[in-house]
Amino acid sequence: MASYTKSGFHVVFRLRIETGTPFGDTYAAISQAGGDVIAMDMHHVEPDFSVRDITVLVRSDEERQRVVAALQNRPGVQVLNYSDRTFLLHLGGKIGTALKMPVKNRDDLSMVYTPGVARICEAIHEDKSKVFQLTIKRNTIAVVTDGSAVLGLGDIGPEAALPVMEGKAMLFKQFADLDAFPIALNTQDPDEIVQIVKSISPVFGGINLEDISSPRCFEIENRLKEELDIPVFHDDQHGTAVVMLAGLLNALKIVGKKMEDLYVVVAGVGAAGVACTKILQASGVREIVGCDRQGIIDPSKEYENPIKQWYARNTNHSGRQGSLADAIRGADVFIGVSGPGILTADDMKAMAPDPIVFAMANPVPEILPEIAEPYVRVMATGRSDYPNQINNVLCFPGIFRGALDVRAREINEAMKLAAARAIAECVPEAERNEQYIIPSVFNPQVVDSVRKAVSEAAVATGVARRRLGSGTSTVVDEFEEAHVTE
Amino acid sequence: MASYTKSGFHVVFRLRIETGTPFGDTYAAISQAGGDVIAMDMHHVEPDFSVRDITVLVRSDEERQRVVAALQNRPGVQVLNYSDRTFLLHLGGKIGTALKMPVKNRDDLSMVYTPGVARICEAIHEDKSKVFQLTIKRNTIAVVTDGSAVLGLGDIGPEAALPVMEGKAMLFKQFADLDAFPIALNTQDPDEIVQIVKSISPVFGGINLEDISSPRCFEIENRLKEELDIPVFHDDQHGTAVVMLAGLLNALKIVGKKMEDLYVVVAGVGAAGVACTKILQASGVREIVGCDRQGIIDPSKEYENPIKQWYARNTNHSGRQGSLADAIRGADVFIGVSGPGILTADDMKAMAPDPIVFAMANPVPEILPEIAEPYVRVMATGRSDYPNQINNVLCFPGIFRGALDVRAREINEAMKLAAARAIAECVPEAERNEQYIIPSVFNPQVVDSVRKAVSEAAVATGVARRRLGSGTSTVVDEFEEAHVTE
Repeated sequence: MASYTKSGFHVVFRLRIETGTPFGDTYAAISQAGGDVIAMDMHHVEPDFSVRDITVLVRSDEERQRVVAALQNRPGVQVLNYSDRTFLLHLGGKIGTALKMPVKNRDDLSMVYTPGVARICEAIHEDKSKVFQLTIKRNTIAVVTDGSAVLGLGDIGPEAALPVMEGKAMLFKQFADLDAFPIALNTQDPDEIVQIVKSISPVFGGINLEDISSPRCFEIENRLKEELDIPVFHDDQHGTAVVMLAGLLNALKIVGKKMEDLYVVVAGVGAAGVACTKILQASGVREIVGCDRQGIIDPSKEYENPIKQWYARNTNHSGRQGSLADAIRGADVFIGVSGPGILTADDMKAMAPDPIVFAMANPVPEILPEIAEPYVRVMATGRSDYPNQINNVLCFPGIFRGALDVRAREINEAMKLAAARAIAECVPEAERNEQYIIPSVFNPQVVDSVRKAVSEAAVATGVARRRLGSGTSTVVDEFEEAHVTE
Repeated sequence: MASYTKSGFHVVFRLRIETGTPFGDTYAAISQAGGDVIAMDMHHVEPDFSVRDITVLVRSDEERQRVVAALQNRPGVQVLNYSDRTFLLHLGGKIGTALKMPVKNRDDLSMVYTPGVARICEAIHEDKSKVFQLTIKRNTIAVVTDGSAVLGLGDIGPEAALPVMEGKAMLFKQFADLDAFPIALNTQDPDEIVQIVKSISPVFGGINLEDISSPRCFEIENRLKEELDIPVFHDDQHGTAVVMLAGLLNALKIVGKKMEDLYVVVAGVGAAGVACTKILQASGVREIVGCDRQGIIDPSKEYENPIKQWYARNTNHSGRQGSLADAIRGADVFIGVSGPGILTADDMKAMAPDPIVFAMANPVPEILPEIAEPYVRVMATGRSDYPNQINNVLCFPGIFRGALDVRAREINEAMKLAAARAIAECVPEAERNEQYIIPSVFNPQVVDSVRKAVSEAAVATGVARRRLGSGTSTVVDEFEEAHVTE
């Protein structure tokens, strides 16, 4: 997938170079293979040879292989090993533990550990709700995966999924100051996953389910939501749905259409597709038709997959039949969470006036913007190298921040709709246009807007267990929470 | 338990004081109740009253209650609420997530998350052992409890146990730069605990079991050791045993006795008692007699509890019978991991010459040093306010550091014995005496000595999966580990 970054990446080559080997020839060979030499560091020198680390910018894995081959063919040069910046920064993982205070002396030790900690334990034992005040539960999210549907890579298992979960934990911290910890499970049994997450839940204030394949993800999420009193949120479903809705809200303002009047086609009825469908229905859309690889999901048919059966019973009220190309005829909106290149320019031409196309398959969208552009009014993708990126990072930090701030029992529909509206509103009306319907993931306003909207929606819907701070002094609140009443 | 700290602790009282109420009287009342006023901060002022935070040093919970009562009886003064330093520092928990690099821009994001992270995932998918290099597994410990035997508090459940586990995680970080995360489970079923720990193990390089009650702790630890390829260590058993052995090694040098010649009495045959017995046997002690509340564990009897049955079959070869007082007659060493005050001065007088007494029950030892001192040559306790504290903090950070440094598959007997010797050797021969057989937990030499000894023992016993660094440059090792071979 690295081939899809525009900027490329750095590879560090450790070379054993015989004394007297001309340097210029080696550099020329790297350059001819497509690499740019960025830096050269001496590792050590012996009488007959030197060992040097050469940092090279390449644009793709193929280019990296060409540079390796070129170096291996140089007389007097031996490639000892090579790595790259991305690998080097992953050494030992990307996150660690931070202590809120050091433990430097006996006084510290007796407060954070025995004997002082026993009083904290007793306070929680007497009133279990104090676990939210006096432990990391207040600010900690489990990022739970079984490694069954990781990025575009599929079922690669918990070990290989871990770098993604660590990355997610980083984003929680960086964007919303939430402490997240990866829980990568080596079981894919829904019963076991539900039982494990319930068992470890005392430590966590929220559960972010991640990269769990459909249809197991629906059962796991639904059961956990029923059985736990903390927010459970499958980001692949709802994060995508919320950000999609945010983009659509702004797109509709541009084309001047209303939710109630739309005909929407959803391609891909997995985790994200179903969640997008449900949030569109909750937002007032009446006519949705879903397509899988076999074509339109048909209300007159029976489906073995319970999710498709749900889909058949709850969408396509006019009973359309046929292929994706049949579905898209006259559609106002296309929502793609399926696979690469399934749409053509002709499909675009067949849509209703001012078509809106969200082609979110990654890394290659359902139709490339350069093909769709002549026919489409508003276009969005999942990619960072085109305008209007539908990126979950816009949603999950703020939605969990808002939920945890008010100690919400769950993340409900009202909170998701509030998050979508808050994201949409981060694009100022004066700046909104076909190429700018969704804010940048680095827009500092987003998390705070989402947090606030979600907290308020939690309070309004009665799922908050803590009042919102007055804003002037959270210290006062905390002091009051830590009070002892005997 | 806070009563047992010598220094006491700070309580912050938030008082509503009517305008005109004399301050001196309030201070005098606090002082008469036994408290020392440390600081006074204004919170806010209204025409009729002011709200002030008064920090008071008290020496015990009882004293705190006396101060509260005294303040509640003052005319013009109302106690709005009160807390203390220990509660305040526990607000929101004691640990958090640290990022090894920030995620500030698109370039960062594309390395730590999609699309760059996909190459890391693929590398681990191709070679699962790379999870030790490219993820947090390399440096991360799970601190696993079911809350069934927490400190002296007993079965208080996972929520109330969490502050202890967070404290433990702090000590791992502070003393050995290990990243530890608390896993507090709301199940006490051994099958479930084993299954859950196995399922979450992909993320962790080691499992520290903590505060799990006997005899379940033995089964859980043994099954996990068999089924996992990472170290599993029940600290309540082995940490105590290792540090006890360290102290005993030095005590024996003082009294001039040998392990093989000792007669040792162990009081308490729970988790710690059994582990102490096993490590003594592994160190060459031949004659050990255990006692529970019913008296001597008798080889001629049958026991329902499998641990006591093991104990009856493997100790007390001379078939002693009777009470603890009968057992201790002629003993060289007493190891107590039982309850408060079970020994008398007469018991001390009945021991062999130069008695060694490790009375480790917490917070009140089997016999107080002030009672035992006239009769005992070397005395140790679990308390920080007497000489010779047997404290697990001397063991677990270094033993896990050493094990993880060489990617050990387990922590075996040789590694534990090496840890005990390394701890003992941190007391210089010239300084060693009856009051100094064990180093301070803040002795900076301890972790490094234990780490080195444990790593070497792991390599020597063939359980290491990584060679020891040359010491000059771990960067080289890491670079080589991150290399790509295609």
